[in-house]
Amino acid sequence: MIATKMQVQVENSSVIRAMFEEGKRLAAIHGAENVFDFSLGNPNVEAPPEVKLAIIDILNEYEAMDIHGYMNNSGYEEVRDAIADSINKKFATSFTQNNIIMTVGAAGGLNVILKTLLNPGDEVITFAPYFGEYRNYVSNYDGVLVVVSPKTTDFQPNLAEFKDKVTPRTKAVIICSPNNPTGVIYSEDTIIKLADILRAKQKEFSTDIYIISDEPYRELAYDDAKVPYLPQYYDNAVVGYSFSKSLSLPGERIGYLVIPDQASDFENLISGANIATRILGFVNAPSLFQRVIARCLDAKVDLEAYNRNRELLYYGLTSFGYQCAKPEGAFYMFVKSPIADEVEFCRLAKQKNILIVPGSSFGCPGYVRIAYCVAYKTIERALPGFKALIEELK
Amino acid sequence: MIATKMQVQVENSSVIRAMFEEGKRLAAIHGAENVFDFSLGNPNVEAPPEVKLAIIDILNEYEAMDIHGYMNNSGYEEVRDAIADSINKKFATSFTQNNIIMTVGAAGGLNVILKTLLNPGDEVITFAPYFGEYRNYVSNYDGVLVVVSPKTTDFQPNLAEFKDKVTPRTKAVIICSPNNPTGVIYSEDTIIKLADILRAKQKEFSTDIYIISDEPYRELAYDDAKVPYLPQYYDNAVVGYSFSKSLSLPGERIGYLVIPDQASDFENLISGANIATRILGFVNAPSLFQRVIARCLDAKVDLEAYNRNRELLYYGLTSFGYQCAKPEGAFYMFVKSPIADEVEFCRLAKQKNILIVPGSSFGCPGYVRIAYCVAYKTIERALPGFKALIEELK
Repeated sequence: MIATKMQVQVENSSVIRAMFEEGKRLAAIHGAENVFDFSLGNPNVEAPPEVKLAIIDILNEYEAMDIHGYMNNSGYEEVRDAIADSINKKFATSFTQNNIIMTVGAAGGLNVILKTLLNPGDEVITFAPYFGEYRNYVSNYDGVLVVVSPKTTDFQPNLAEFKDKVTPRTKAVIICSPNNPTGVIYSEDTIIKLADILRAKQKEFSTDIYIISDEPYRELAYDDAKVPYLPQYYDNAVVGYSFSKSLSLPGERIGYLVIPDQASDFENLISGANIATRILGFVNAPSLFQRVIARCLDAKVDLEAYNRNRELLYYGLTSFGYQCAKPEGAFYMFVKSPIADEVEFCRLAKQKNILIVPGSSFGCPGYVRIAYCVAYKTIERALPGFKALIEELK
Repeated sequence: MIATKMQVQVENSSVIRAMFEEGKRLAAIHGAENVFDFSLGNPNVEAPPEVKLAIIDILNEYEAMDIHGYMNNSGYEEVRDAIADSINKKFATSFTQNNIIMTVGAAGGLNVILKTLLNPGDEVITFAPYFGEYRNYVSNYDGVLVVVSPKTTDFQPNLAEFKDKVTPRTKAVIICSPNNPTGVIYSEDTIIKLADILRAKQKEFSTDIYIISDEPYRELAYDDAKVPYLPQYYDNAVVGYSFSKSLSLPGERIGYLVIPDQASDFENLISGANIATRILGFVNAPSLFQRVIARCLDAKVDLEAYNRNRELLYYGLTSFGYQCAKPEGAFYMFVKSPIADEVEFCRLAKQKNILIVPGSSFGCPGYVRIAYCVAYKTIERALPGFKALIEELK
């Protein structure tokens, strides 16, 4: 009796739930400390101390109505000003509050901009491997997700194939860098070429094609790697930012959209995104945390904790013979399965109490995603299992 | 270049924005204290002190990851347990955490349940006057809103017309009691008859028809008036609750859905709502405020403040000759316009610096909504304007 579309979702999700239940079952048998769960992108590094201090200061400085009340659907003006200033300092842009819409995380922001843009049948392109929810977000507005196949040599976008897949129905391109699930940063060279292709296609088809840059992992870049800022390269770029990982606040659902002045149909985009925020039922991003993040724009989580995990896992796995591009950002490693059927590999890993996600969930079979946002000790204790696994498969 | 549906929304919303801008313009000319804005349902009574105490206690008791981290998309188990227990105590129900899904306010909850239920073309019935956003929420999932015309004698639902409007395509009925915009509580007699009609229609058509009870104003009932709890009267009842008004936390976006065991297709409803929460981009209700409201389930805002406003406004307006059903709940009064064209009446009111909303926004022309969640002084100072208005129109 539920909606047909949702019936399909429920059937698919029961597989994921079965995995989750299996993890709980293993923990009950072997003890939670002997089950190595690398399946979830849930930050294990604490929010920086500035967050707690900001909450307490705000509670003491403001009247309750000015903390918990309604505001403009786009968010508090002063918060959006603070965010615009912070971006301008980093990227030499000239945004104002009028370019910023506060959102319920990046997931909320992506839904808002897709609701604003998509007519039924409009195409949205993304590059495999990609975050599986993009398919749902696009489908929510009856768009069609077009997937460009992966370039497994370096996991940069496959631009040759991309070029052929842009059509007059292409309304947007979603990119994610640092990438979930590979940890790869799309290089400046990639971004320049991507932008060049899109400018040519816009001209060819007399259309506007927006790049939606999903950036929950922007601040998680190792070795001071540079993550290109899309609005510097392309006019029709919309940025979806989140504080979920940069401040370890995923449960608080706080992020924002950046819609630059130079984007085509700017006024309608802004008005539409404001209205979409309201009518999708978000209404506004959570009010206290709008004020909190405005005071924590320069705060940072302990990136070195993730980096230690990255080094340990990368050198461990490659020393055993696993093949993997060393991630430059985020907290994921995308490892080639030692056997072609990576779903079977994940099943075998589970027998060693190691929980990892098949690449087919990201449109890239033959690989697995290992989320290393876990305790260092978890990696240390899981490595012998990874070693035994690859040896048994040789 | 934005979506066609959104283009229409943008054009409509510019009228509302114009009103808002006009309010700001008037405030600049006459001083904010001389502009009487009764247009918004933004609580003016502070959150109870328990809220601030709960926030500080939670910050001190939990690790940051257990406050700000991800949890199940449906929300923290212990929070949902606490809510179920609280409902059970009040209404002699027997809910558990499995019946509760935490949502981004009632607006988020309504979107989640409509996404779960609606196939394109499915009909959703509501009773005029009704909260205008219902039309958008239903349209988001390609449903068709069917409006039952108002019974202006007492603003109880028009059940005779309702009976004729239930069809084999009717998937749900949305009710709101205490009602926005009338403040009327749907009586137990109404609810019993409504449930009887739906049971008969379900049998006649061999369908399931859900009542979705939108309850942001449940705790705002005056003179200890009883607000019937739908699951006690009808099996296929889903409750959408919000703490926006009961705890004056509208900006925090915190509420929940109740889906009773006895609802048809219960397992799929729960799984579907959990998934809808995720894929619509809510992901989960804000995490800190889940814990906060669990500790404030018995806290109350100062209802007497709203009640004083209600008494002053009601006796003032009726003494001048305005006609109005005395509201039993919420913080709205729905007053008959002294002239047939209530949009013109709102325009004339604005000339006296009084901002009110035409009933046509709620599917009920000829009336106006006055939101009295304002300072007592605002009502005192606005009353002479209301008096002059009706006298000039006689």
